[in-house]
Amino acid sequence: MKFSKFGQKFIQPTGISQLMDDLGDALKSDQPVNMLGGGNPAKIAAVNEVFLQTYQALGNDSNASDPDSSAIISMANYSNPQGDAEFIDALVGFFNRHYDWNLSAENIALTNGSQNAFFFLFNLFGGAFSDNKLDEHGQEKKSQSVDKSILLPLAPEYIGYSDVHIDGQHFTAVLPHIDEVTHDGEEGFFKYRVDFEALENLPALKEGRIGAICCSRPTNPTGNVLTDDEMAHLAEIARRYDVPLIIDNAYGMPFPNIIYSDAHLTWDDNTILCFSLSKIGLPGVRTGIIVADPEVIAAVSAMNAVVNLAPTRFGAAIAKPLVQNDRIKQLSDNDIKPFYQQQATLAVRLLKEALSDYPLMIHKPEGAIFFWLWFKDLPITTLELYERLKEKGTLVVPSQFFFPGVDVDNYRHAHECIRMSIAADEQTLTDGIAVIGEVVRELYDKAK
Amino acid sequence: MKFSKFGQKFIQPTGISQLMDDLGDALKSDQPVNMLGGGNPAKIAAVNEVFLQTYQALGNDSNASDPDSSAIISMANYSNPQGDAEFIDALVGFFNRHYDWNLSAENIALTNGSQNAFFFLFNLFGGAFSDNKLDEHGQEKKSQSVDKSILLPLAPEYIGYSDVHIDGQHFTAVLPHIDEVTHDGEEGFFKYRVDFEALENLPALKEGRIGAICCSRPTNPTGNVLTDDEMAHLAEIARRYDVPLIIDNAYGMPFPNIIYSDAHLTWDDNTILCFSLSKIGLPGVRTGIIVADPEVIAAVSAMNAVVNLAPTRFGAAIAKPLVQNDRIKQLSDNDIKPFYQQQATLAVRLLKEALSDYPLMIHKPEGAIFFWLWFKDLPITTLELYERLKEKGTLVVPSQFFFPGVDVDNYRHAHECIRMSIAADEQTLTDGIAVIGEVVRELYDKAK
Repeated sequence: MKFSKFGQKFIQPTGISQLMDDLGDALKSDQPVNMLGGGNPAKIAAVNEVFLQTYQALGNDSNASDPDSSAIISMANYSNPQGDAEFIDALVGFFNRHYDWNLSAENIALTNGSQNAFFFLFNLFGGAFSDNKLDEHGQEKKSQSVDKSILLPLAPEYIGYSDVHIDGQHFTAVLPHIDEVTHDGEEGFFKYRVDFEALENLPALKEGRIGAICCSRPTNPTGNVLTDDEMAHLAEIARRYDVPLIIDNAYGMPFPNIIYSDAHLTWDDNTILCFSLSKIGLPGVRTGIIVADPEVIAAVSAMNAVVNLAPTRFGAAIAKPLVQNDRIKQLSDNDIKPFYQQQATLAVRLLKEALSDYPLMIHKPEGAIFFWLWFKDLPITTLELYERLKEKGTLVVPSQFFFPGVDVDNYRHAHECIRMSIAADEQTLTDGIAVIGEVVRELYDKAK
Repeated sequence: MKFSKFGQKFIQPTGISQLMDDLGDALKSDQPVNMLGGGNPAKIAAVNEVFLQTYQALGNDSNASDPDSSAIISMANYSNPQGDAEFIDALVGFFNRHYDWNLSAENIALTNGSQNAFFFLFNLFGGAFSDNKLDEHGQEKKSQSVDKSILLPLAPEYIGYSDVHIDGQHFTAVLPHIDEVTHDGEEGFFKYRVDFEALENLPALKEGRIGAICCSRPTNPTGNVLTDDEMAHLAEIARRYDVPLIIDNAYGMPFPNIIYSDAHLTWDDNTILCFSLSKIGLPGVRTGIIVADPEVIAAVSAMNAVVNLAPTRFGAAIAKPLVQNDRIKQLSDNDIKPFYQQQATLAVRLLKEALSDYPLMIHKPEGAIFFWLWFKDLPITTLELYERLKEKGTLVVPSQFFFPGVDVDNYRHAHECIRMSIAADEQTLTDGIAVIGEVVRELYDKAK
């Protein structure tokens, strides 16, 4: 069949489609797989118990002949394009209880997951813009087209951003400062920091070719948490250049709150905060939350109408009571965050044991559900390493896909890292890291 | 904030966003509203009972410490971008049981509702195409761009198609033959038929500027069901011009099967069938189903990955058992279809009573959940009529939005019709039609 130019880009496999297919195939497979590759959150029994109780309560409180029963309402009715109104009200209450943001319902829209939110936002703020200049008489000159990019102030960034623009890619990324740091008093760690000098001197920024600034915090894939100072600096730059600052908060505060460093969350009308129910343990419900200026919310709602008619409601139905009674925050603080912190401690120990005398560097684990491993001067690219690990039943993600906006051909560091999930159970983590150790040791040993 | 050109189109209210906002506001409102405007399916107690039982069974069969429990699986895991694999397998079995299509899992993808499917398909097959011609040496000549449209062989068509193209609108529509017909032996009805002579002579079709042919069957907004002969003719034209035939089956066979005329469903590898769980009564779960050639399914799956990461799973979880045991077909045949047939009979009676001596013509009710009323020579446009009815608490949808690809400025018929849902309960239908009758009678009377 003949596909449009827009369609042509989807005929080619993308980094993210490969990742998602590997993940899905592994879950369907009968073969044991050490799944350290996907973004699926951990199965935490205490958390699933709450979700299941909530699910059952919704069902048991319902009566098929009462169309206002909770379960029936969410199955049998469309919501507004903005999203389930009662969940939005619950979120307004929740955020205003915990922060001084003074939100109203006009500040929140729901999307079919966070990826969907970024598809909307990156096309709202990246791509072709009309540049309507005024002539000397104050009349609008003939409209010219300007191509604007999404500025990623700290590469590497999330693989899922790469392909979301409706035509081509519109990213400009700044390469990181790489600082060697300690973690819990130990050596062998590094931390990425924003290179503000490079950022401030970026021609695209000075020349009006940036449409928005975006970062994930904690960062997928690295587990880095940008400091409050870095965030304040980014917010100041965004305001100075009159572009929004988009923060991907999928792993951040207040839920799932997988952050171990000292960090705070702020919002103002130039900030677009994106939240998700996925990493508290509900990825299947595909529910994303955007907090932003009403103008942005109106645009997102209109996109929801055109692309989806209305967002899905089940996630809203399950999460609403947990948001209303702050249970979502208690789960995050008391169950989810400690679980991943424990996993991180275990993964550090296993990795140190497996590769103690080898040039492994681990990005300082400050949050999220991933480790980012740097194999300095590895004799092969990590794309090749990924294939070798996959042959041995261990799935990770090679680093080269995490640099949207960077020409990785000339950047060796982008071929020396892998993203490894720490959400798996102890046995899988142990087995997977053993395979990584074995393969990587052999590679370094042979190159000696 | 500054939005891209793509974003600009979402700042303006669209026909569909207005419709969805009116619908949502009415559902939230404390004021009684005669809601004949939305596309929400009816609340049929026997059907909701089955959904609720299924919901409860999924929950009660689950155990939080067993990650393979049904409810937990669908909440706590992403599916592949193609969609929930077990539901796809169930659909393959279901369609192969009832039709001789010989499908495999590679023929089916899920989307976040039918609207989402059309967003994907209309951008895959409409918009800018590369037209790679070969020169006399068999080398590819410099690629030229051709703009292709989606051909709607019978306007009016679904309002939701209008705005889905990522840049502008790419529709070419053929105006209908309007035949006066009887319905159950009564006068006062008409039926749209495809003007095949106009269709076959369409310059865009002959000159390769059509990317796909699409129709809804039963048609939203009119309740028309294209005949088997009309469908066969369209399929032949599509094959002749090497473009796919897309059939929007949201109200069609085998579920929800809201069809009262004699009609059959066919599929081949040049046909793209779109199904939905919405009109069996599950619009909130946002689940669409595409049956097509594997090449199309691969492209849709890739779009799912980029736009949504993966489709939502809850609808799949609820519908899977009902598809496996054919309950979805029994519900459609025994509960859903008879319900709407009864509503149609009631609506005809009420409308005939309200406007017996006035020039009302009703599109022959052959299926779907809407009536399409034609007020010939109405002194005002139906956009104005919509506003007057809304003032009196009755919501309908004016006809002008249902003509994507038609310049309605010069087509009076497009301003003389309304779409009216017949999914409401008897009281609402009675009250709403009473208001329509009162307002329309006064308009005609004053113009005398």
